[in-house]
Amino acid sequence: MKRELGVCYYPEHWGEAVWEEDAARMKSLGLSWVRIGEFAWSRIEPKPGAFNFEWLDRAIDVLGAAGLKVVMSTPTATPPRWMVQKYPDMLALDEAGQPRRFGSRRHYCFSHLPYRDECRRIARALGERYGNNPHIQAWQLDNEYGCHDTTLSYSPHAEAGFRAWLKEKYGTLGALNAAWGNVFWSMEYATFKGIGLPNQTVTEPNPAHMMAFRRYSSDQVAAFNRAQADVLKSYTSVPLIHNYMGRITEFDHFDVAADLDIASWDSYPLGFLWDRIDTTEVHRKRFLRQGDPDFQAFHHDLYRAVGDGRWWVMEQQPGPVNWAPYNPAPLTGMARLWAWEAYAHGAETVCYFRWRQAPFAQEQMHSGLLRPDGKPAPAFAEVEHLSEELALLPDVAPHQADVAIVFDYPSCWAWEVQPQGADFHYFRLVYEQYRAARSLGLSIDFVQSWSPQIPTYKLLLVPGLMTMPAILRDMLAQFEGTSLIGPRTNSKTTEFSIPTPLPPDLPGLDCTVEFVESLPPNVKYQLEGGGAFRHWAERLTGEAEVALTRHDGAPAVMSSGNMHYVGGWPDREGWERLIASACEAQGIATVRLPEGVRIRETGRHRFAFNYNSTAVTLDGVRIPAAGVHWEDL
Amino acid sequence: MKRELGVCYYPEHWGEAVWEEDAARMKSLGLSWVRIGEFAWSRIEPKPGAFNFEWLDRAIDVLGAAGLKVVMSTPTATPPRWMVQKYPDMLALDEAGQPRRFGSRRHYCFSHLPYRDECRRIARALGERYGNNPHIQAWQLDNEYGCHDTTLSYSPHAEAGFRAWLKEKYGTLGALNAAWGNVFWSMEYATFKGIGLPNQTVTEPNPAHMMAFRRYSSDQVAAFNRAQADVLKSYTSVPLIHNYMGRITEFDHFDVAADLDIASWDSYPLGFLWDRIDTTEVHRKRFLRQGDPDFQAFHHDLYRAVGDGRWWVMEQQPGPVNWAPYNPAPLTGMARLWAWEAYAHGAETVCYFRWRQAPFAQEQMHSGLLRPDGKPAPAFAEVEHLSEELALLPDVAPHQADVAIVFDYPSCWAWEVQPQGADFHYFRLVYEQYRAARSLGLSIDFVQSWSPQIPTYKLLLVPGLMTMPAILRDMLAQFEGTSLIGPRTNSKTTEFSIPTPLPPDLPGLDCTVEFVESLPPNVKYQLEGGGAFRHWAERLTGEAEVALTRHDGAPAVMSSGNMHYVGGWPDREGWERLIASACEAQGIATVRLPEGVRIRETGRHRFAFNYNSTAVTLDGVRIPAAGVHWEDL
Amino acid sequence: MKRELGVCYYPEHWGEAVWEEDAARMKSLGLSWVRIGEFAWSRIEPKPGAFNFEWLDRAIDVLGAAGLKVVMSTPTATPPRWMVQKYPDMLALDEAGQPRRFGSRRHYCFSHLPYRDECRRIARALGERYGNNPHIQAWQLDNEYGCHDTTLSYSPHAEAGFRAWLKEKYGTLGALNAAWGNVFWSMEYATFKGIGLPNQTVTEPNPAHMMAFRRYSSDQVAAFNRAQADVLKSYTSVPLIHNYMGRITEFDHFDVAADLDIASWDSYPLGFLWDRIDTTEVHRKRFLRQGDPDFQAFHHDLYRAVGDGRWWVMEQQPGPVNWAPYNPAPLTGMARLWAWEAYAHGAETVCYFRWRQAPFAQEQMHSGLLRPDGKPAPAFAEVEHLSEELALLPDVAPHQADVAIVFDYPSCWAWEVQPQGADFHYFRLVYEQYRAARSLGLSIDFVQSWSPQIPTYKLLLVPGLMTMPAILRDMLAQFEGTSLIGPRTNSKTTEFSIPTPLPPDLPGLDCTVEFVESLPPNVKYQLEGGGAFRHWAERLTGEAEVALTRHDGAPAVMSSGNMHYVGGWPDREGWERLIASACEAQGIATVRLPEGVRIRETGRHRFAFNYNSTAVTLDGVRIPAAGVHWEDL
Repeated sequence: MKRELGVCYYPEHWGEAVWEEDAARMKSLGLSWVRIGEFAWSRIEPKPGAFNFEWLDRAIDVLGAAGLKVVMSTPTATPPRWMVQKYPDMLALDEAGQPRRFGSRRHYCFSHLPYRDECRRIARALGERYGNNPHIQAWQLDNEYGCHDTTLSYSPHAEAGFRAWLKEKYGTLGALNAAWGNVFWSMEYATFKGIGLPNQTVTEPNPAHMMAFRRYSSDQVAAFNRAQADVLKSYTSVPLIHNYMGRITEFDHFDVAADLDIASWDSYPLGFLWDRIDTTEVHRKRFLRQGDPDFQAFHHDLYRAVGDGRWWVMEQQPGPVNWAPYNPAPLTGMARLWAWEAYAHGAETVCYFRWRQAPFAQEQMHSGLLRPDGKPAPAFAEVEHLSEELALLPDVAPHQADVAIVFDYPSCWAWEVQPQGADFHYFRLVYEQYRAARSLGLSIDFVQSWSPQIPTYKLLLVPGLMTMPAILRDMLAQFEGTSLIGPRTNSKTTEFSIPTPLPPDLPGLDCTVEFVESLPPNVKYQLEGGGAFRHWAERLTGEAEVALTRHDGAPAVMSSGNMHYVGGWPDREGWERLIASACEAQGIATVRLPEGVRIRETGRHRFAFNYNSTAVTLDGVRIPAAGVHWEDL
Repeated sequence: MKRELGVCYYPEHWGEAVWEEDAARMKSLGLSWVRIGEFAWSRIEPKPGAFNFEWLDRAIDVLGAAGLKVVMSTPTATPPRWMVQKYPDMLALDEAGQPRRFGSRRHYCFSHLPYRDECRRIARALGERYGNNPHIQAWQLDNEYGCHDTTLSYSPHAEAGFRAWLKEKYGTLGALNAAWGNVFWSMEYATFKGIGLPNQTVTEPNPAHMMAFRRYSSDQVAAFNRAQADVLKSYTSVPLIHNYMGRITEFDHFDVAADLDIASWDSYPLGFLWDRIDTTEVHRKRFLRQGDPDFQAFHHDLYRAVGDGRWWVMEQQPGPVNWAPYNPAPLTGMARLWAWEAYAHGAETVCYFRWRQAPFAQEQMHSGLLRPDGKPAPAFAEVEHLSEELALLPDVAPHQADVAIVFDYPSCWAWEVQPQGADFHYFRLVYEQYRAARSLGLSIDFVQSWSPQIPTYKLLLVPGLMTMPAILRDMLAQFEGTSLIGPRTNSKTTEFSIPTPLPPDLPGLDCTVEFVESLPPNVKYQLEGGGAFRHWAERLTGEAEVALTRHDGAPAVMSSGNMHYVGGWPDREGWERLIASACEAQGIATVRLPEGVRIRETGRHRFAFNYNSTAVTLDGVRIPAAGVHWEDL
Repeated sequence: MKRELGVCYYPEHWGEAVWEEDAARMKSLGLSWVRIGEFAWSRIEPKPGAFNFEWLDRAIDVLGAAGLKVVMSTPTATPPRWMVQKYPDMLALDEAGQPRRFGSRRHYCFSHLPYRDECRRIARALGERYGNNPHIQAWQLDNEYGCHDTTLSYSPHAEAGFRAWLKEKYGTLGALNAAWGNVFWSMEYATFKGIGLPNQTVTEPNPAHMMAFRRYSSDQVAAFNRAQADVLKSYTSVPLIHNYMGRITEFDHFDVAADLDIASWDSYPLGFLWDRIDTTEVHRKRFLRQGDPDFQAFHHDLYRAVGDGRWWVMEQQPGPVNWAPYNPAPLTGMARLWAWEAYAHGAETVCYFRWRQAPFAQEQMHSGLLRPDGKPAPAFAEVEHLSEELALLPDVAPHQADVAIVFDYPSCWAWEVQPQGADFHYFRLVYEQYRAARSLGLSIDFVQSWSPQIPTYKLLLVPGLMTMPAILRDMLAQFEGTSLIGPRTNSKTTEFSIPTPLPPDLPGLDCTVEFVESLPPNVKYQLEGGGAFRHWAERLTGEAEVALTRHDGAPAVMSSGNMHYVGGWPDREGWERLIASACEAQGIATVRLPEGVRIRETGRHRFAFNYNSTAVTLDGVRIPAAGVHWEDL
């Protein structure tokens, strides 16, 4: 698979006079792809049913004639004003019951079926006109599902859909009441119509009620996407893509991806540093102009799994953005580094967002490869350099890592439904474990909890998996590699009850969680030999071997052969010790990397990335600030 | 009065098959009481008017047959779904006018009279069936009035009720307008229908308006409780009880208690450490697994006054709970210590919440005496030990303390209506004074502001009493003991105006508050000889003796004989000095206790409690961590 | 112009019996003015159309007979209850769509035209009765426009008004869509009725949409004021005044002032210290009882410009107030200092608020010159002293400063619409620059961005002016003095787009902002020679001279002759260096004043004010705490 470059472009923002020059400049910069159309509904269909495709035909012609491949998009993330006037009830309602109105984007409720039909209709119109257009080599559906907290809606349409979904799932109210434990607090329902959404209750709703609503809401995103995908597949055979966002976990990306061909995501390292990760001010200052050294790789690896191996960066930050609390400029070199890191993790294509900075509307302070006056912005030169380098390096060589982490979206919802401690998140737990593993120089794959690939890994990490599928339990019973499981693993049934036997109930491991503790930030349980549990600690009992103890004598890790259950939330040192020891048992080499330096191995190369603003020396090689180094394996 | 143990039990949560074994285990553990039924409405009356008592009959029989005394409850804190469908307007509205909907508990507005009638109806049905059941030895009405901020509701029913209440109270609009000072800002009303609730105003509403609404809202809680109490009294002669919560001050507990026989409260020391007291992170860390050393005793003493001497702990935390920001496990021994402390303060019965941890619904992470799988949880063994100890110790000996603190719910509302400084609370002021007194080894009673017992005390503390009743003023004029009054005492009329003569207007004390200051946390007035005023300071003038001055020369305390007015909010050292000095004048012995150690004297014993996680030595006696020590007086 | 003293009085709050004595005491205290009537609507017109002027006639007679000049007010800030019952839709709606209800004050939407007519009606009634009353020497219209966040309303009336305003402004939807760039995100409108208010959108609305709404909302305040002013001008020829507040920037005060004769403002230095400025706890502690040393002067200078030279302090804090987070008492002497500072900055009259502390309603904890019992409060003696001093000093001598700062309300809205960094405010930028200039001993004028006075200054400061009018650009091209312009200057068109050529596009200065950065608080760019940029930094390019560089080598200031563009937000040291250097070039003397000491020169005197709580020595003169010193120039 060849590595390629691309850019996002909005012909409708600019006079047609500049299209040709723009296309020529893109081509000469070495770009192969140009994405268009994802917000253009008001220009494609200015009035209901009255299409205006001519300008778009011309734009595609101009781009294609210049030798660019086009990613055409459905514009369903921005229904035009007339659509909302036609369906005033298509707006989502927030948790307080307030409408989320027209005037920006993503102003629709995923449960609104008439709007879903309208999206089928526009997809059909686009498919009919462009399904066989030779310049169009891929399609993007909608834009950034779930962004701006749009997965969950508390509208009447969501309520009606939820009730139907419950009826389908449980059949009878008796089954539902029993599954949820509604006898508690006299919450039993006598009719499906009596079931509301789990918002605005006096104190917290039944977690089973919340969890069912989370599952329902995720299903609607998948169904919404499927509606368009099914239409487009009847018109085209080029790949279908969606551009996911960083740390959006409200819907199950694996479910959406099942109807698509390629996963992609929108990577804004400097913005995400501020609003997507839990860290310190010192860390943010250190990586202010580079982004967190693990955030991009985490999503590269995760979306590679979501895309079943095929994935892009659809939008890559080129300079300062407009939407974070603070918006500095990237350190020189980072626009190149981010792209190389994506390729090293298997990206087929990296598209920069956007070609030219728009001087108007919401994103006018979002930089592009060009300034608003059309002159090159600082990232332009980096992309020039990158495009020359790309010509010299071989294709992406797919490569399975030795280490896999089970990532499970429903577990994320379960942690949010019942964190049991302030600020506890599943994402944070997995992210900290991932960071520790990468600090040891490891390359990592993510896998779903029932993935048939699981037995092929040497080391399997299973953090915080709230409900363990039987198939995973069976694979663990046979697993030949080392597994590091926990904390909080298998602590809920699929109906959000505590199972009996009590957790973690692992095959061949006589270990029971007697009770759990959530801890404030200033309290830790020290571990023998170094590291500590923080945030979360479990009291383990049973006959299994105690592989590690806490300073207070309680078991920290209990083991049976190569299967280890971790009864707490380790800190950085704790995770590094546990992972390093597991790697040693499997003959996987580890190394303690300098802060801000990360490694990724492909089938042929070993890449090193320096996220620091100063040079580092790694294995005798000096890597400059924002530098990338690779060598053959 | 014999000390007894009990537990909360939910037969409707478990198959009938386990009831007998559960009852036998309770009995063999030494429990005397079992509370049931307080959330079971949907099982008692699954459809409107269609009762199903048979399962409950059997449950009571099984428990009674095992030798347990039953506390039967009215289930009115959890109206079933059909009730809310019958009366959609029974929901409370929050301050923003949003409904507080079905799906958890306490989803009713205290002003909704049809629901109040329904509560009379269910109380009547229960009373008819079980009023003479010999196993039922007490009744609990509803559950935790006011919990989850449910005292105040801004519903149309509340508005209508408030208007009727105002008409009853003031008679004419002229009287109301004059009493409230509505000429200010042209707020005069021409009709009672024109008076709204004091929410959603542009800037703050008239404090007299707010205060009237607070009084009205408290009255509705009392009326709601009275409605059930009146019904039950016609069917039974065993005691009626309500289980109050920690630091709920929105209704006047003395008013509710007037219709009941015994007060009780639900004591969750580890949860309350996080969300009920104003303290530091260091303090919270120190007492993370023990609870604040004064919070339980404060409520024991307060609710002893509320119950006019008779009180229980109806729910005692046994292990980690689910609802605090962080939920650690109690230090070993605390489940026993908390019970002994309750007995030492006069509790007749301590019931643990709950028998077995429920694996489903909202409180599935709330521990019980048994784990979800029925095996003993850690507290089980402590209760076993406790029950053996109880057999050896004499009855609770009632005992009046030397020191009394006036506690006044309307003052709490007045401070909230007009704190005059950010984060100033009446509760906090009283609590800090109580903590200082207990640090000196004192046993303390609370009294109402008009209690005829007041003259029998040696030392009377009157902190922050916003409006002084004439009867207290008269008692102070005659008081033979020492009184420590202030700050902010008598600073408002009953209609929330500044009185003339200006405050504090104490009998025989020529002292006037010229003006008051609220101070930010980092500003203090140092006191001569040690300690300081913080938060609040008053400029005192007059001819009375200046008993203590501030470093800036202004009077801090002005006195006439044994009556002292304190013109500020003393810090810990300040309170300790003032109280110690007052005790000395009255010949009351004081001692500076080690941090975390507290003393309580009963009629026959002196108990010492060690809230620390390490042993302490007190008067030559070593008390282990979480230890209790008693000796004869 | 003679300096005078006054007070705010509410005859309707007190029995008529005390009026005569009150008037006599005011007169004997040396007061000349008394403001009345601004909240008295419910007493003037108790029922719709039924006026009761007799009490007011008598009050004016009593005050006038005592020799006091009366400021009569329109009571339109407090529509009575019957008005809101007549027009339930006159209430403003907040951003969440919630009504802002009756029960305090300012409960009206500026867009509600029937209420505007009612205000015309009451103004007419008052004008008819009192327009020629010889005791009434000035009128105040309404009270504190915009206070309590009342400028912006999201009501249906505001929406309808906004649409009409847009139609008037843009003519066609094509023009509007093009001006706003609505093609972005398919936000194009096909009808004016389709345009909503910019609240409750899913993510941020189009900044052009927000900016238009801000302009519209400001226009409504001016139109509301004009409606009353036009009526009153037909009945009276004495000056019309409005009392503005501190740091209210939601409407353009220059626009309102165009219909009035005198500007005034309400100065509460201790309250404003807490909720109006961005500073540290240490600073707040230091000036807890004095107020920030620049806040009062800033508004004196600003409102002198707003009033085109004529201005008052209509309400001057005399003691503790009730509405700040903390409400300490002023340091002795401050009530005098604040008045002298106002006079030094050109105030004609200073009125204290209020005569006697009201014992009831919302402001009962707001002190006056008298206590609630009628005895003198601490400030009384200071006013006595002040009134004696006033008799000895000459009139206010108007005086133009050497230095002017351009202050532009629309720029403030633009910064709020698009801060680009958390907590960035235009007011804060201007305030910090003003503080730095005053620390150098400078006297300062504010000017509008198109003021014809601009060429007469020696030093012109133009901070953060988002859109530069052509007339200012022309004046700058000809400017003979020194100008210090930036940051962020001229970065938006009037339609909130990025202009081409790129900013700052200054005449004769070849300097372009390549990109901008917003920075978190802990990140700075050090400047060569001292000081730093923080919060905001711009990458400057071009051929202009680099007058100052950052440590990283990038240009910080680029210049052409005496015109300097500042590409960042300087810290205190940075501003002081830049301003001092500019002053030196113009031969303006500067001095580094001690902290808390400030200077103001009038035409005849040089005043020095010591805001510290300890004495300072300035040029050999000892100025006590809270002291004022003046000497002839």
